Amino acid sequence: MAIINEKYSTIIQDTVEQLSGGEHYLSPCFFKQNGQPLPSEKKLKEIVQLTRSVLFPGYFGNSRINAHTIRYSIGISTERIYELLCNQIHAGLCFECCYDEELFSGNRKKAQDLAASFIAKLPELRLSLETDVEATYNGDPAAESMGEVIYCYPAIRAISNYRIAYTLLNLNIPILPRIISEMAHSETGIDIHPGAKIGKSFTIDHGTGVVIGATAIIGERVKLYQGVTLGAKSFPLDEEGNPIKGIPRHPIIEDDVIIYSNATILGRITIGKGAVIGGNIWVTDNVPAGERIVQMPVKP
Amino acid sequence: MAIINEKYSTIIQDTVEQLSGGEHYLSPCFFKQNGQPLPSEKKLKEIVQLTRSVLFPGYFGNSRINAHTIRYSIGISTERIYELLCNQIHAGLCFECCYDEELFSGNRKKAQDLAASFIAKLPELRLSLETDVEATYNGDPAAESMGEVIYCYPAIRAISNYRIAYTLLNLNIPILPRIISEMAHSETGIDIHPGAKIGKSFTIDHGTGVVIGATAIIGERVKLYQGVTLGAKSFPLDEEGNPIKGIPRHPIIEDDVIIYSNATILGRITIGKGAVIGGNIWVTDNVPAGERIVQMPVKP
Amino acid sequence: MAIINEKYSTIIQDTVEQLSGGEHYLSPCFFKQNGQPLPSEKKLKEIVQLTRSVLFPGYFGNSRINAHTIRYSIGISTERIYELLCNQIHAGLCFECCYDEELFSGNRKKAQDLAASFIAKLPELRLSLETDVEATYNGDPAAESMGEVIYCYPAIRAISNYRIAYTLLNLNIPILPRIISEMAHSETGIDIHPGAKIGKSFTIDHGTGVVIGATAIIGERVKLYQGVTLGAKSFPLDEEGNPIKGIPRHPIIEDDVIIYSNATILGRITIGKGAVIGGNIWVTDNVPAGERIVQMPVKP
Amino acid sequence: MAIINEKYSTIIQDTVEQLSGGEHYLSPCFFKQNGQPLPSEKKLKEIVQLTRSVLFPGYFGNSRINAHTIRYSIGISTERIYELLCNQIHAGLCFECCYDEELFSGNRKKAQDLAASFIAKLPELRLSLETDVEATYNGDPAAESMGEVIYCYPAIRAISNYRIAYTLLNLNIPILPRIISEMAHSETGIDIHPGAKIGKSFTIDHGTGVVIGATAIIGERVKLYQGVTLGAKSFPLDEEGNPIKGIPRHPIIEDDVIIYSNATILGRITIGKGAVIGGNIWVTDNVPAGERIVQMPVKP
Amino acid sequence: MAIINEKYSTIIQDTVEQLSGGEHYLSPCFFKQNGQPLPSEKKLKEIVQLTRSVLFPGYFGNSRINAHTIRYSIGISTERIYELLCNQIHAGLCFECCYDEELFSGNRKKAQDLAASFIAKLPELRLSLETDVEATYNGDPAAESMGEVIYCYPAIRAISNYRIAYTLLNLNIPILPRIISEMAHSETGIDIHPGAKIGKSFTIDHGTGVVIGATAIIGERVKLYQGVTLGAKSFPLDEEGNPIKGIPRHPIIEDDVIIYSNATILGRITIGKGAVIGGNIWVTDNVPAGERIVQMPVKP
Amino acid sequence: MAIINEKYSTIIQDTVEQLSGGEHYLSPCFFKQNGQPLPSEKKLKEIVQLTRSVLFPGYFGNSRINAHTIRYSIGISTERIYELLCNQIHAGLCFECCYDEELFSGNRKKAQDLAASFIAKLPELRLSLETDVEATYNGDPAAESMGEVIYCYPAIRAISNYRIAYTLLNLNIPILPRIISEMAHSETGIDIHPGAKIGKSFTIDHGTGVVIGATAIIGERVKLYQGVTLGAKSFPLDEEGNPIKGIPRHPIIEDDVIIYSNATILGRITIGKGAVIGGNIWVTDNVPAGERIVQMPVKP
Repeated sequence: MAIINEKYSTIIQDTVEQLSGGEHYLSPCFFKQNGQPLPSEKKLKEIVQLTRSVLFPGYFGNSRINAHTIRYSIGISTERIYELLCNQIHAGLCFECCYDEELFSGNRKKAQDLAASFIAKLPELRLSLETDVEATYNGDPAAESMGEVIYCYPAIRAISNYRIAYTLLNLNIPILPRIISEMAHSETGIDIHPGAKIGKSFTIDHGTGVVIGATAIIGERVKLYQGVTLGAKSFPLDEEGNPIKGIPRHPIIEDDVIIYSNATILGRITIGKGAVIGGNIWVTDNVPAGERIVQMPVKP
Repeated sequence: MAIINEKYSTIIQDTVEQLSGGEHYLSPCFFKQNGQPLPSEKKLKEIVQLTRSVLFPGYFGNSRINAHTIRYSIGISTERIYELLCNQIHAGLCFECCYDEELFSGNRKKAQDLAASFIAKLPELRLSLETDVEATYNGDPAAESMGEVIYCYPAIRAISNYRIAYTLLNLNIPILPRIISEMAHSETGIDIHPGAKIGKSFTIDHGTGVVIGATAIIGERVKLYQGVTLGAKSFPLDEEGNPIKGIPRHPIIEDDVIIYSNATILGRITIGKGAVIGGNIWVTDNVPAGERIVQMPVKP
Repeated sequence: MAIINEKYSTIIQDTVEQLSGGEHYLSPCFFKQNGQPLPSEKKLKEIVQLTRSVLFPGYFGNSRINAHTIRYSIGISTERIYELLCNQIHAGLCFECCYDEELFSGNRKKAQDLAASFIAKLPELRLSLETDVEATYNGDPAAESMGEVIYCYPAIRAISNYRIAYTLLNLNIPILPRIISEMAHSETGIDIHPGAKIGKSFTIDHGTGVVIGATAIIGERVKLYQGVTLGAKSFPLDEEGNPIKGIPRHPIIEDDVIIYSNATILGRITIGKGAVIGGNIWVTDNVPAGERIVQMPVKP
Repeated sequence: MAIINEKYSTIIQDTVEQLSGGEHYLSPCFFKQNGQPLPSEKKLKEIVQLTRSVLFPGYFGNSRINAHTIRYSIGISTERIYELLCNQIHAGLCFECCYDEELFSGNRKKAQDLAASFIAKLPELRLSLETDVEATYNGDPAAESMGEVIYCYPAIRAISNYRIAYTLLNLNIPILPRIISEMAHSETGIDIHPGAKIGKSFTIDHGTGVVIGATAIIGERVKLYQGVTLGAKSFPLDEEGNPIKGIPRHPIIEDDVIIYSNATILGRITIGKGAVIGGNIWVTDNVPAGERIVQMPVKP
Repeated sequence: MAIINEKYSTIIQDTVEQLSGGEHYLSPCFFKQNGQPLPSEKKLKEIVQLTRSVLFPGYFGNSRINAHTIRYSIGISTERIYELLCNQIHAGLCFECCYDEELFSGNRKKAQDLAASFIAKLPELRLSLETDVEATYNGDPAAESMGEVIYCYPAIRAISNYRIAYTLLNLNIPILPRIISEMAHSETGIDIHPGAKIGKSFTIDHGTGVVIGATAIIGERVKLYQGVTLGAKSFPLDEEGNPIKGIPRHPIIEDDVIIYSNATILGRITIGKGAVIGGNIWVTDNVPAGERIVQMPVKP
Repeated sequence: MAIINEKYSTIIQDTVEQLSGGEHYLSPCFFKQNGQPLPSEKKLKEIVQLTRSVLFPGYFGNSRINAHTIRYSIGISTERIYELLCNQIHAGLCFECCYDEELFSGNRKKAQDLAASFIAKLPELRLSLETDVEATYNGDPAAESMGEVIYCYPAIRAISNYRIAYTLLNLNIPILPRIISEMAHSETGIDIHPGAKIGKSFTIDHGTGVVIGATAIIGERVKLYQGVTLGAKSFPLDEEGNPIKGIPRHPIIEDDVIIYSNATILGRITIGKGAVIGGNIWVTDNVPAGERIVQMPVKP
């Protein structure tokens, strides 16, 4: 609303010159040139919402479906997912690449293939998520119905995003899986790296502060509480002191394990089948199957 | 932007057939039929914002009110809350019910009654929240004014949502209280179950990771820090192995208790009046009034 | 959609009377009069996004820039930041002040000066953030490129907001810094008070639940994991029992320190250069330089 | 942005008192009470757009349809038309009625029936509109394709709205037809009363200023140019001096007539089959079939 | 989506240089400098809509008002009109003025006074518009109710905008009246200059193409049909050949006159009380009271 | 909101079957397949607005420019025009073409060339429009400043769109010119075919109902009033009875002609230099230079 006077105008100009004068200090890493499209968080959100509406029909998106009309609703959403995903995958493929029209145009074709591959995996994705919903419902005495779990529980939101991101990562699509898992991280405080492998009937209670690292492996029917970390203890550096990428460094959690709130499990250790880990503890060694470990309670 | 060619079109069609072909694998729990309206997170957000603007006039919503014109602003917001709430309560009442036009239409009337009952409780709600604001201001040396606390503190946001959700739950309105508390959970990382009973002058510092379970009871002038869990230790199962609902299983926190960051208090135990619980500890037994317990500090 | 009948209309009116009848119980602290403009979270979000687009050109905002056209893009964004910031600083300056047209109009001028001062600091801000990005990239084996770190990592989002908020606080602009840091807190679960002093090459892994208090001082090349608290142990009260503001009460973390997940460091203690603090522990005493402390692991 | 001071605040209050003090001068005709829903222009626009997308698939709405997926797209749009129309017809039925919950709720049922009746007429509507498109294409040497006519010609927009409005009027739905035809009037300058009867293969060139009255009857293959009025010459008054409603008072235009720009045809006269009426003339008498009348050209 | 290559980038740069290089050909008339705020069509639309909601309560804006709650609704809308109008009048006052902070700030005060004066005239405005609605209803056999006229008739929309614009013009507010009347012109095809003086009970049928010039004077109970022009025949030029501003050059239409479609009345002539002017004619001389003139009908 | 019952669901399904069952009656002309992108009216509106902001800097778009910062503003808008136009031209080129990936991808390249050619013509476009603004200002005694003319006059809006559309048409870009001129037609009631050739210093007063045909030729300093038609009298048909495209069939209007309201000029006739045509007349023969013709005024 205010008028820009000469003085302020000069300050603005000077700042613009400094910020756009690349010669001086502008490292190429911090200046992305030549306009390849960037992945759009907004569009990825729409993709996730549409996917949810297709996997849990009637709970998300169009609520009016019935046995007759469900095809319309799922059909139109699936087409839309395909369309949006083509563009986003294209943007993802170009995220790190240099300026090259050939490559740009080849990536467009590739993106269409990959989007179709993702679509083809939706029925499978749905079956996995159904087991997660059931496990969550059965594990929470406060849950009043499956519907409530699907509709309201942040764990289901985070696990949905994880399973979508995992599927995309396995198609070797760069950057998008990470953005999709960060979206859930931001909404729920649950940070599951899309590279982790997680079995069926997985559930997380409350969830804020949960961290699951990139090389973690989790069996079936595992339950985590808020604040649990499945992290790396340390990671080997290469000769130049940079971390070596891709080395297994996060825990293996076998079937039927329960881990209580704020427990920290670090390193490529194994928590054996059916073990129970109490809250607020720090575990850096293997735990045998069936074992039960807790912090020494502080007596008042 | 891309043209859908024949191949991709076939993949889409196949997927749609699988996802909408209910006969095969589609459990009724994961397919909500016949179009009863669903609660809308967007509308509930609007209700919460309007309620905030009515409870802290001038801080939210219309900032131009003065002693003459405040009635216009509160009047129009209160009417709008009523209108939105009628629809949302209606949707909530229908969330689990089967297809039945009689019931559908009866619920509409019931929703109007319940919305009016909620409206009538707004002045009381306000008085409670004022005590929470005062407690928060007094307890934080970094707070510069009451206004800053009202306007910026996530704890006030979370406690407001909790007090609204608690009021709705006590009117036996299903699902909405849960959604409203999850909204605050997502924004602030503070997860207060709407079933918990919390006294006046309640405050939470920072707050991320706080969990307060459905049957917790908290007295007056209690203060929690980030990461505190008031959870259940275990819960009895019925004969079929399902958790029994509604059993008291979370702690009782008496007046004037302070609980420091990342402490985990589990089970139906009692933390006595004026007790102080140190951070990062795991408490599963009663703590007498006035007691002070802390983790053994690790000496370097 | 429903018709408001007489009965409901009366309830609404009664409630409005109670809520707007200031005489009875309405403390002036909870009723902000006379329409000074309030800071707008929405506009502050836009300011933060524009600042990000100016500091990491091509990653945020217009993705099509190249060496020729970067001036247009940075120019227009910088102008827009200036314009938006004038209004927001003006609102911030008036947040606590009483009704006075003279003051109101004087603050407008002051706001223009302060906005220009902020603009002038953008190049410096950028240099700091570059070191944070590099540190984050180097410290995470899962990071695939600098671009991914800039574009996706919540830590960078939280640290950006912190560095912006810190710059505004140092210009003595009230309330805005707090709102900007709460925005990041809500999105990332990382709560850095804008008053904290943080050196270059700072990084946070995962981040949910991190709390950094108002008087904390952090050196260069420090790394924190999720759930770390740098808090106050207690704070002295004045004669009336109110907390004394502004006293140093949070830790000093020297250069090259690493603090693992869920560790709680409390009070004005010093963690010496190069020390490593293990997870889930509670530290209230100084830690010498180079020391390494961890929780006693619970053996199964 | 400005502060409201005392003086202005008083003026606002006084004005509000005058405007809301119904006793003095507020005729009930100008104050619509008790909150029956009003038809929404925005929703009606959406209905018209969806109808267009269903009648000319691929030209409006989703452009990606093919022979395989067209059912999804038409299905979802048709459902949405039904849903929106239920609410709008309900609002239309209540537009003039007094406050009565019984009636309100009965109208809701009636609205569902009427909306379904409209849906059932869509295929017929489409066949009519196809003839109009063909006639428009054939009659304009500047038209490059049928597609261009469907996509760009205001005449097709106005005739579509007319045919939709006519269908609704014939179901005795109040007010909505009028709103829909005014929407086209505002966009195109073509004002066709929904009560007029218009045969197939109708076309209007340019169209701005065309007026077709409520009781006009138009045959097949008629073409009008811009500015043509088919109006009433005068209308009989009843004993109290009010116009008698419903009397035929507009022209009958038989098949294959052409009427050039700005011609005014007034009263219940008949323009015979194949007649040609020149521009800028005033016709108040029957014109025999095949006749050709023009204004005496003014020689320079 | 496409990548900008070098060649296109150069063309863009060259064009930008030409367009921003003011020295060469950029007349100051076509380049508005230094950022005085411009009137906003969007905000003016909102002002007109709010004014309508205040003048015809229940028909526009909040439809749920009743005798109890009408004050809330009118109160909040009137406040909002005041606020928006302050900014728009301020922008209007600065539209032609040069860069000067003193003037800029003085205009802000002036704008507040003028906005309050406009508010104070709303009750009067309402009384005039009620007579227009009645006249329109009584004059159209197709009108089914007063409500339909208020809600749907473009004439009422155009006359409302005119009466608002006229009120603003009489307060010597520049530019805004013109924009408001052009808004109605665009929506309805009715172009009434805000300078025209128009008596009560004015009505226009259909209306597209009506033009009423700046110095026209219209009595009470006048009715116009579509396409009527009340224009200037010619206008005297000053010594430099520029038109002399402000000279009366449009017709005077006395009470109870009816003018049919497409008639053109030019120059400062007088159409006497009760005269009837037929359609499609060109009138440049006085018409005595009670006279009836029509185009010679062309006999077929 | 209502529940869809079985009966309505069946009606919807039946209708969908009829509308999507292409075999029966679905002419390929009315069903656009395979998802080539369609031109977007919304994006074209944005292009026109940006073009306006670039041609009349400070009046549209960013109002804060000054001599220092104008480059930023024009630069960013020009880039954005280029980007949007690439997509729209691409869509335009594909509008009539069949499904072919080769062609689709070739058109993308071509679109980039054409968009750049349009950009290069912007400075020229600006010079033409400046003459139109001056002519409009000089010709209207009610115009208070050039600024008012640029900012408010519908004629300038219509002529701007025409000059943009004409430029695109001369680059052989299909469909877009037509859409852009229809946009102005809808807003202003002025219908100028983009194929017409119009000289400098062109102006239209009021404008509603003006029609200028595709092959019309208009000299310099011509002025039209509302309702003027420059149309075709008839057009030759080919052997199959279809109109022959592209034949000159609209009038030639030489320099300095004035044509008053509602005059209709038909056929490839010439109105000689400086002639004046009175209102409401019908002209189908040449008018010599300097001639003045008017309708015989009807004496009362």
